[in-house]
Amino acid sequence: MIMGLVARSDVKGAVELALKIADFLTEKKVDILLDMPLAMELEKYQDQRCELEEMDVDMVIAIGGDGTILRTQSFISHKKIPLIGINMGTVGFLTEIDPENAFTAIEEILAGNYFVERRNQLLVWHNHELPPALNEVVLMTRKPAKMLHIQISVDDEIMEELRADGLIIATPSGSTAYSMSAGGPIIDPKVKAFIIVPICPFKLGARPTVVSDESIIKVKLLREGKKAVAVIDGQFEEEINYMDEIIFRKSDNCAYFVRLTKDFYRKVREKLTQGGIS
Amino acid sequence: MIMGLVARSDVKGAVELALKIADFLTEKKVDILLDMPLAMELEKYQDQRCELEEMDVDMVIAIGGDGTILRTQSFISHKKIPLIGINMGTVGFLTEIDPENAFTAIEEILAGNYFVERRNQLLVWHNHELPPALNEVVLMTRKPAKMLHIQISVDDEIMEELRADGLIIATPSGSTAYSMSAGGPIIDPKVKAFIIVPICPFKLGARPTVVSDESIIKVKLLREGKKAVAVIDGQFEEEINYMDEIIFRKSDNCAYFVRLTKDFYRKVREKLTQGGIS
Amino acid sequence: MIMGLVARSDVKGAVELALKIADFLTEKKVDILLDMPLAMELEKYQDQRCELEEMDVDMVIAIGGDGTILRTQSFISHKKIPLIGINMGTVGFLTEIDPENAFTAIEEILAGNYFVERRNQLLVWHNHELPPALNEVVLMTRKPAKMLHIQISVDDEIMEELRADGLIIATPSGSTAYSMSAGGPIIDPKVKAFIIVPICPFKLGARPTVVSDESIIKVKLLREGKKAVAVIDGQFEEEINYMDEIIFRKSDNCAYFVRLTKDFYRKVREKLTQGGIS
Amino acid sequence: MIMGLVARSDVKGAVELALKIADFLTEKKVDILLDMPLAMELEKYQDQRCELEEMDVDMVIAIGGDGTILRTQSFISHKKIPLIGINMGTVGFLTEIDPENAFTAIEEILAGNYFVERRNQLLVWHNHELPPALNEVVLMTRKPAKMLHIQISVDDEIMEELRADGLIIATPSGSTAYSMSAGGPIIDPKVKAFIIVPICPFKLGARPTVVSDESIIKVKLLREGKKAVAVIDGQFEEEINYMDEIIFRKSDNCAYFVRLTKDFYRKVREKLTQGGIS
Repeated sequence: MIMGLVARSDVKGAVELALKIADFLTEKKVDILLDMPLAMELEKYQDQRCELEEMDVDMVIAIGGDGTILRTQSFISHKKIPLIGINMGTVGFLTEIDPENAFTAIEEILAGNYFVERRNQLLVWHNHELPPALNEVVLMTRKPAKMLHIQISVDDEIMEELRADGLIIATPSGSTAYSMSAGGPIIDPKVKAFIIVPICPFKLGARPTVVSDESIIKVKLLREGKKAVAVIDGQFEEEINYMDEIIFRKSDNCAYFVRLTKDFYRKVREKLTQGGIS
Repeated sequence: MIMGLVARSDVKGAVELALKIADFLTEKKVDILLDMPLAMELEKYQDQRCELEEMDVDMVIAIGGDGTILRTQSFISHKKIPLIGINMGTVGFLTEIDPENAFTAIEEILAGNYFVERRNQLLVWHNHELPPALNEVVLMTRKPAKMLHIQISVDDEIMEELRADGLIIATPSGSTAYSMSAGGPIIDPKVKAFIIVPICPFKLGARPTVVSDESIIKVKLLREGKKAVAVIDGQFEEEINYMDEIIFRKSDNCAYFVRLTKDFYRKVREKLTQGGIS
Repeated sequence: MIMGLVARSDVKGAVELALKIADFLTEKKVDILLDMPLAMELEKYQDQRCELEEMDVDMVIAIGGDGTILRTQSFISHKKIPLIGINMGTVGFLTEIDPENAFTAIEEILAGNYFVERRNQLLVWHNHELPPALNEVVLMTRKPAKMLHIQISVDDEIMEELRADGLIIATPSGSTAYSMSAGGPIIDPKVKAFIIVPICPFKLGARPTVVSDESIIKVKLLREGKKAVAVIDGQFEEEINYMDEIIFRKSDNCAYFVRLTKDFYRKVREKLTQGGIS
Repeated sequence: MIMGLVARSDVKGAVELALKIADFLTEKKVDILLDMPLAMELEKYQDQRCELEEMDVDMVIAIGGDGTILRTQSFISHKKIPLIGINMGTVGFLTEIDPENAFTAIEEILAGNYFVERRNQLLVWHNHELPPALNEVVLMTRKPAKMLHIQISVDDEIMEELRADGLIIATPSGSTAYSMSAGGPIIDPKVKAFIIVPICPFKLGARPTVVSDESIIKVKLLREGKKAVAVIDGQFEEEINYMDEIIFRKSDNCAYFVRLTKDFYRKVREKLTQGGIS
């Protein structure tokens, strides 16, 4: 077995935990590869350093927050490598393990006591294929406090023409992230759907809309002279021009998360109790 | 071919239109049966009167609002009879035809130019099987302005324990009805899901939750000494007692609607523009 | 100085604390009167028992939750007696002291280290004057899951005609109570205003509306054959009939709360963090 | 009497109407001054052209949408000149007259049949006094889809520390504008209050808060390395840096609107029916 290790290299605790896990795995006779920015923070394991996108491993352990998971996933999403996150921040929806249980959890994983959960991703097309979104794509104006004027169609039926600060197209994974701040519902990961949520819509009755993951969603920018930006998972930006069409559909590439327990709603409740979202 | 005819017998326009449609169908050599309350308003067609639940017909035409459709559907839902609604009220989501297009539409149907859309229904179990819900089940207290204290579980994982004025479990068909007034999202009819929406929840962060239509939803009444009532599609009431469990899952009986055009989102937009919901 | 003592007589901890406070006050040479239901739970102090509405005291201490405060206030609201609550439940907005600080707080009060905060109440008129509302008046149908059809006017201008499950007219004090569950904003106690909040409105764009406390609000029941009920502070019920008009304006009787610190927003934050409201 | 005339110079209909009104007023022996950009579109009245900020007139007529009114008001707000808007766009909250009634309305005004409504404005202080806001001040990040981390205090009590896309501080006039898109309530113009509305707050339970117009609101930017921008009435931008404090209180300068009828709620209903907001 060979495992990849990724950590937020700017967070001291994450790097230290990564070193301990590297030692632990080595002791357990598991081969390891370390992501470059992590390796640069360590003296040990210089021979095992490897670019993330070139890692040919059985599983990747990522230490950080949901942002670290999203970034890691964007590099390995074409390779069906299961990913497990160790959470260094506030409660994460994409991370599975807390630091204090890290070694017990890794032993469970080495013993095979885990399952892999497949999560749908959004394929995003704008002139060419953009990186897939695990959580969401946000369309916004470049200028603060200015509105977009957009047309949304679902399976070639016009769904809505609206003016709003922005628009979110999210997966069930993303339903507990930014989409929720904008008023979107929680979508159970088992639901085969995407969600379309306007941000501060001009039309008072506008509502979040849940569509099938077999549907093709098209968004067109209607106002001349205005530019927009599409932000994918908070990681990647693409500029959108007047009359440009962005197309969203289910990606053939899924994300694969290593899971030890079924606890989606427990995490949701913790978030609601804390009053915050990831 | 044999067709059933139902109309809101307390609305004069609905009864008059029903008579004209009966004449029209008879002229076209289509056999007809008339629902008892409708037949009682007419002199003609006394030999063709029939209890709704005993109608063995190829299609039912219902003249009225969404309430008429829901009541009619509750009587024929076990028999897979396609149903088409002619709308006598404000814009309906379940009715397909406006009165002014009624005869053109019926000619299209007689010529076979239609398709049948299957809509999921909720099976509701409380000690025994209750009538299925096409739109939604609403749980409320018997006393105004008092709260329910309930536990909701999804596939045997506890989803939430909450205090609220009430709870709605709705189908995609119901997502544009009462669920929407309580803050629920629009669910495209193609999405295989149900939606759980708390009414005036005590917990500020509580959100509507969309779950798979393969999931089993259980709701338990937690507060001793309190009674609740479950209202199915605004038609049927069932009393719920302390520690009672109500179980919801996809019904094997679907509703079958005759459709002439694909226009879900046009109807949604009309509703939003009117600022009202059905 | 003479103090009144009220406690939730069905909560053992409240009665026990009341006894200790009675002993404490007696030792400090403060005269006391005990509310009848409290006196009936105790053997001591039988000579000091008194009906709440007849208490002629300098201050009333009420031990319980916000419900206890609302009930106590409804009996003494015409007499300008300052009221202080000791909270036995979840975080209360109307209670000022936690049980663990009760004796320190009472000593502060006896030393004069407190201020009195005046809170507006709603005068409610329906054929005759009803008890004033400190928090809110809720209008609901008598039948679960049925809608009211009402007309609201402000200073004789028609504000809105709407169908909804119900309607809340709340004071700033009530803005953090039931009004909040129905989607109303937080109103700082210093704002001279009332708030009108529809419950599950049929009209999608309907919004809470904040009006001046100098305004006169009239609500009329428009649908024939339907009855509604007005619930004042969750304590008092009044039946409303077709075409009846209920009139709301600022009451001449205020509530007077003994306060030790200024901490409105700290309480709000605690509620939001807990995710619940009183 | 002397009147100022302003029009959206890029909208042909507005310029044409302005010319007709200029002719009409001249015929009625009313002296007129024309705003420079308007005068530049016309051949006539070149001698009556005048910079808006230098107009010393009895009343200003502005032809355009709410944006035109906000821009005009920002130039004359220190001079207590009554302003009347003729609406060339969708229903406006700040404009009083529709083009088809323009001449009748002006005759009413010349006959003295009008009243002047005073509207509060927000004084905005950031190192120095910025232009006052008639509708609202919006705080946003410079980067799309990134959050602000801010602390809000009211009368030196910390109200809230929150992460959000942005924050709106609005007057009652602004409550029916951008604030409403972000979920804020309607505030009757008679209420002496301001409203604080977070945009897409990270904290699920966060709510709009209404505070007294006698209160002093302070907002501080907490996250190092981040910049924000404050946008006043969509017209004026100011950059805000880490740990900067922006202070809001009632401005001594009010806006003065010429009104012919009392119809606040009729306008609100039209907006809600159209499903849009200005």
